[in-house]
Amino acid sequence: MTKTMKTRKNPFSQSSSSEPDRLGEIYRAAAQIICEKGYDATSMNDIAEAVGITKPGLYHHISGKKDLLYRIMNFGMDSLEEQVIAPARLINDAEQRLRSIITNHVQLITSRSTPQGNNPVTIVVDEVAGLTPAHRRKINQRKRAYVDLIRDTLTELKAAAKLREIDVTAAAFSLLGMILWLSRWYNPEGRLTPEQVSAAVMEIALGGLLRSRDRRS
Amino acid sequence: MTKTMKTRKNPFSQSSSSEPDRLGEIYRAAAQIICEKGYDATSMNDIAEAVGITKPGLYHHISGKKDLLYRIMNFGMDSLEEQVIAPARLINDAEQRLRSIITNHVQLITSRSTPQGNNPVTIVVDEVAGLTPAHRRKINQRKRAYVDLIRDTLTELKAAAKLREIDVTAAAFSLLGMILWLSRWYNPEGRLTPEQVSAAVMEIALGGLLRSRDRRS
Repeated sequence: MTKTMKTRKNPFSQSSSSEPDRLGEIYRAAAQIICEKGYDATSMNDIAEAVGITKPGLYHHISGKKDLLYRIMNFGMDSLEEQVIAPARLINDAEQRLRSIITNHVQLITSRSTPQGNNPVTIVVDEVAGLTPAHRRKINQRKRAYVDLIRDTLTELKAAAKLREIDVTAAAFSLLGMILWLSRWYNPEGRLTPEQVSAAVMEIALGGLLRSRDRRS
Repeated sequence: MTKTMKTRKNPFSQSSSSEPDRLGEIYRAAAQIICEKGYDATSMNDIAEAVGITKPGLYHHISGKKDLLYRIMNFGMDSLEEQVIAPARLINDAEQRLRSIITNHVQLITSRSTPQGNNPVTIVVDEVAGLTPAHRRKINQRKRAYVDLIRDTLTELKAAAKLREIDVTAAAFSLLGMILWLSRWYNPEGRLTPEQVSAAVMEIALGGLLRSRDRRS
């Protein structure tokens, strides 16, 4: 448990309007507008207005739209790193690690979903077409590290004869698709609570990936 | 089986360079470029070049970029309608209908996937931000009809005590996420054949959604 922790403030803290909080707010508001209007039609002005700061104030933080897009993606990947990947890496047992990944990733998405039925930051993380090739490579590298974590976990489960007869790559992406799609449909003001959604995804994912317990020898 | 069939040519036929084939080619090429460069950075010129026609030739078919985006989405939804929804509606048994939906939708995506590891048309269908509000409503309506088909199928399975203890809406979107995510990772030049991917998704989906056979009474 003696992990090296970054000393910077947790950007999800609600306690003060410190710099990382402010940036988080900007990224989330910008992602929301990009999802609504499209990246093309979104201006720095729209974003400044949505966050309630002046345009020069916004440019104090961010140099332009392309920079902003890359920052939103890294912000999304930072959240994934802190709330899903890092806790999972502390878990030795593969089945427990898989459960932790599912719970925490579902929670990350549902906790920041909007009544429009989406999680804008998660969606924008997949809009890599707007990035420079170098930035696109960096984001893809970060995503690959997460896919590898899931794939390695499933490979361990396969070695322990706990996985169904399925290809681990196809299984890893099927799980990811199930979780990431939440960012496009889950509405926090709808009928389902985050806990209900989490329970359903856990049941479907474990039922789909693992052999049923009675069949394990 | 006496369904009313449209008499127009199947746009997926490879046999001649008829109008619907030509349009399909244009839509697929345009979707590919939009995925690579982003909708913003894609010009009508890029698309004309990729399809190998002149710009006036392209404008003979399509009035502009916004029109093109809407047409690509309807093209994607037409394919879904013809290859997934219509065949499913002919099947009375809910479990067989579910299997048919999974097989045909996976096949629709993998058969048109590119070595870049994506299916551009399927991805563009989700880029509704670029549409006018009226067009967005129409596309969302078409998508909702498909979600309803899946949800109704799962509701039937629930009534027959074949479904796990899961919310049918969460289950429908989990299945959709699993299938649609294929459009972002499946590479036809990679290790996995379409048949292997289809088998994996089928195993995970049925295992995740249905009670194990031995537990059904």
